[in-house]
Amino acid sequence: MTSVISLLTDYGLEDGYIAACHGVIAGISPESRIIDVCHLVPSGDVRRGAAILAQTIAYLPPGVHVAVVDPGGGGSRRAVAVEAGDHVFLGPDNGLLSWAVHASGGARAAYEVSNTDFFLTPVSPTFHGRDLFAPVAAYLTIGRHLSELGPRLPLERLVSLPAPTSVLQEGYVEGEVLSIDRHGNAQLSIGSGDLVTLGVAPGDTLVVWLGRRRLSVPFRETYAAVPPGEIVAFTDSAGLVALAVNSGDASQRLGLPPGAHVRLCPPP
Amino acid sequence: MTSVISLLTDYGLEDGYIAACHGVIAGISPESRIIDVCHLVPSGDVRRGAAILAQTIAYLPPGVHVAVVDPGGGGSRRAVAVEAGDHVFLGPDNGLLSWAVHASGGARAAYEVSNTDFFLTPVSPTFHGRDLFAPVAAYLTIGRHLSELGPRLPLERLVSLPAPTSVLQEGYVEGEVLSIDRHGNAQLSIGSGDLVTLGVAPGDTLVVWLGRRRLSVPFRETYAAVPPGEIVAFTDSAGLVALAVNSGDASQRLGLPPGAHVRLCPPP
Amino acid sequence: MTSVISLLTDYGLEDGYIAACHGVIAGISPESRIIDVCHLVPSGDVRRGAAILAQTIAYLPPGVHVAVVDPGGGGSRRAVAVEAGDHVFLGPDNGLLSWAVHASGGARAAYEVSNTDFFLTPVSPTFHGRDLFAPVAAYLTIGRHLSELGPRLPLERLVSLPAPTSVLQEGYVEGEVLSIDRHGNAQLSIGSGDLVTLGVAPGDTLVVWLGRRRLSVPFRETYAAVPPGEIVAFTDSAGLVALAVNSGDASQRLGLPPGAHVRLCPPP
Repeated sequence: MTSVISLLTDYGLEDGYIAACHGVIAGISPESRIIDVCHLVPSGDVRRGAAILAQTIAYLPPGVHVAVVDPGGGGSRRAVAVEAGDHVFLGPDNGLLSWAVHASGGARAAYEVSNTDFFLTPVSPTFHGRDLFAPVAAYLTIGRHLSELGPRLPLERLVSLPAPTSVLQEGYVEGEVLSIDRHGNAQLSIGSGDLVTLGVAPGDTLVVWLGRRRLSVPFRETYAAVPPGEIVAFTDSAGLVALAVNSGDASQRLGLPPGAHVRLCPPP
Repeated sequence: MTSVISLLTDYGLEDGYIAACHGVIAGISPESRIIDVCHLVPSGDVRRGAAILAQTIAYLPPGVHVAVVDPGGGGSRRAVAVEAGDHVFLGPDNGLLSWAVHASGGARAAYEVSNTDFFLTPVSPTFHGRDLFAPVAAYLTIGRHLSELGPRLPLERLVSLPAPTSVLQEGYVEGEVLSIDRHGNAQLSIGSGDLVTLGVAPGDTLVVWLGRRRLSVPFRETYAAVPPGEIVAFTDSAGLVALAVNSGDASQRLGLPPGAHVRLCPPP
Repeated sequence: MTSVISLLTDYGLEDGYIAACHGVIAGISPESRIIDVCHLVPSGDVRRGAAILAQTIAYLPPGVHVAVVDPGGGGSRRAVAVEAGDHVFLGPDNGLLSWAVHASGGARAAYEVSNTDFFLTPVSPTFHGRDLFAPVAAYLTIGRHLSELGPRLPLERLVSLPAPTSVLQEGYVEGEVLSIDRHGNAQLSIGSGDLVTLGVAPGDTLVVWLGRRRLSVPFRETYAAVPPGEIVAFTDSAGLVALAVNSGDASQRLGLPPGAHVRLCPPP
């Protein structure tokens, strides 16, 4: 049976780093299938890595999911393996895994990854992806068990990232720009369910506050429902509200970096 | 037997979008082999996506080829499956598939892709690649038939892109810059056969008109046949005439964006 | 049994070039597993390609490793196949393969790749990756032998790149910046063994000369051992000394391009 291993890192694509991970996995588990989730997470951006993994995991087959965005570079934090849903997540215990674990139904069990029998020798202190996580993931797909990796961890000791802020109030919902995609669409930390609660339906016009700027923005099924060049809000493929410009770049047009504060109100 | 599914999109590599498509396919068709044709098609550039697919398809094994460059975002246009040669092409009916279909010998049959049994539930209006095309492609590799996807379409109703302009006249051939590759080489919409018709052979010197600028450019077997830094014309790997600067960037040097008009004349 | 083929090129990811190579391989050798080592080698940068392959090869399974960075574009140089360790390397005979061959224990046998039976027809003079190296690699994984590719070459006729300069003297070691990675870390051509010879141990403070600038830089196990924003030297995952800024970009901060000259001295 084919086993799936997925990889998410901030290693970039300009070196052989990802290939080294693939090679280590292929050497130990030749029948495994590797899915590269993303390797262009901005360097050290744990929140962005966590968001990408959490928004993708529902579409990945049961498997072992390795994520390495590790500003500390394997320094002080633990390496962990977390069971959730049909998945095993492997990575640094810095919160990177926490949103995907939550999206998969929450942690059922966690283990410290400390058994050096499963690591390459020597382990480079700066390349745990290759020397530690890749071989551990591969061994898990050929019959080794989580319990062999190291001591079991109480679930409450796992590091969790604070969830992106989103506050639903009487008459408005506030959140932040979670990410900007390649098309310039700004994904907000606001679930479309909050708009439903506020009584907003596709076809309505939202009042959008960006700091002290006030915009009237149509809320539609898709960005293509407005003429090219116009601003639109829609529910994106992760179920979150996004601001877009049809055939344009909303992030540039509205000056919206990740983290920018946004308030949405129903039509007056 | 291994089945091949190829993917071409403008989704970029900075998110988990491509991984979600891979995951959906791997879940339904674990034995399939996925080939990523290109995911850096400029956002919404249907012509560029069509050109890349058309120039690559002859080198791909028989399989199901998914292409999604969809400025309308799944709004009004149909989703289609087109049989041509040994291939099935899946994508929006906006002309994206048309050049590859033509390069594969022309459409033999076409179907609207409308049977929601093959889709993920719910279908995000903005992510048909993941929710519609990926699962449909996967099901086609495990024994489901095109005829189950939806009603058969008359071939003449398929949307075609106009072919890149190229005009062969007595004494010259005119075309446009089709694309600029990573090395700065400018691929023209002019097949090298047109130069043969004009009596030009490798070793000759072409007269190249870029607007009102006139250049004398050697026509050679490869860009490396001229000294570093010099301009050269050659037949590229797609059989088209390209302008290059050996060890340099012809697009920058000559100020040639995609779409720029070019006329080639035999040596005087 | 699964066979591994790895690919390293400077083709970039914005076209269908890599997919064409994958397609050719999958057509001939459907059971092979392809590992993409790197396709973002700067255009024509043979030394950078050689360094990436050499630093990755120890982590790749036994297989056929194709590398194409070929400023001459298939012009005058030979195409070669080189046996070293458990590997076969395929590429232009311009030195690109030489560091990886050396890292794999040195060449055991070499062959000119000239038997056109294994090539696509016609061979584009500018796309040997697709038309020559990809099919040859694929045939080697389905039972064809190196000796069928062309005449055996005396090993001393293979082109070698000069090794990156590094000079160990009484009291100092000099080298150059080999590469800058995505995080801005500057990898030097200086093995950490040279620092050991000079009596430097993790915890010490190095004197680093960049031209006429003198810096005191802590030498640590990992870049994370200094506070964010501070400069640090450490042994990177390839066993080479690297200069980094924790959570910052050392290359920008220190103005260090690839090739820049660096001298390291033990603490005074």
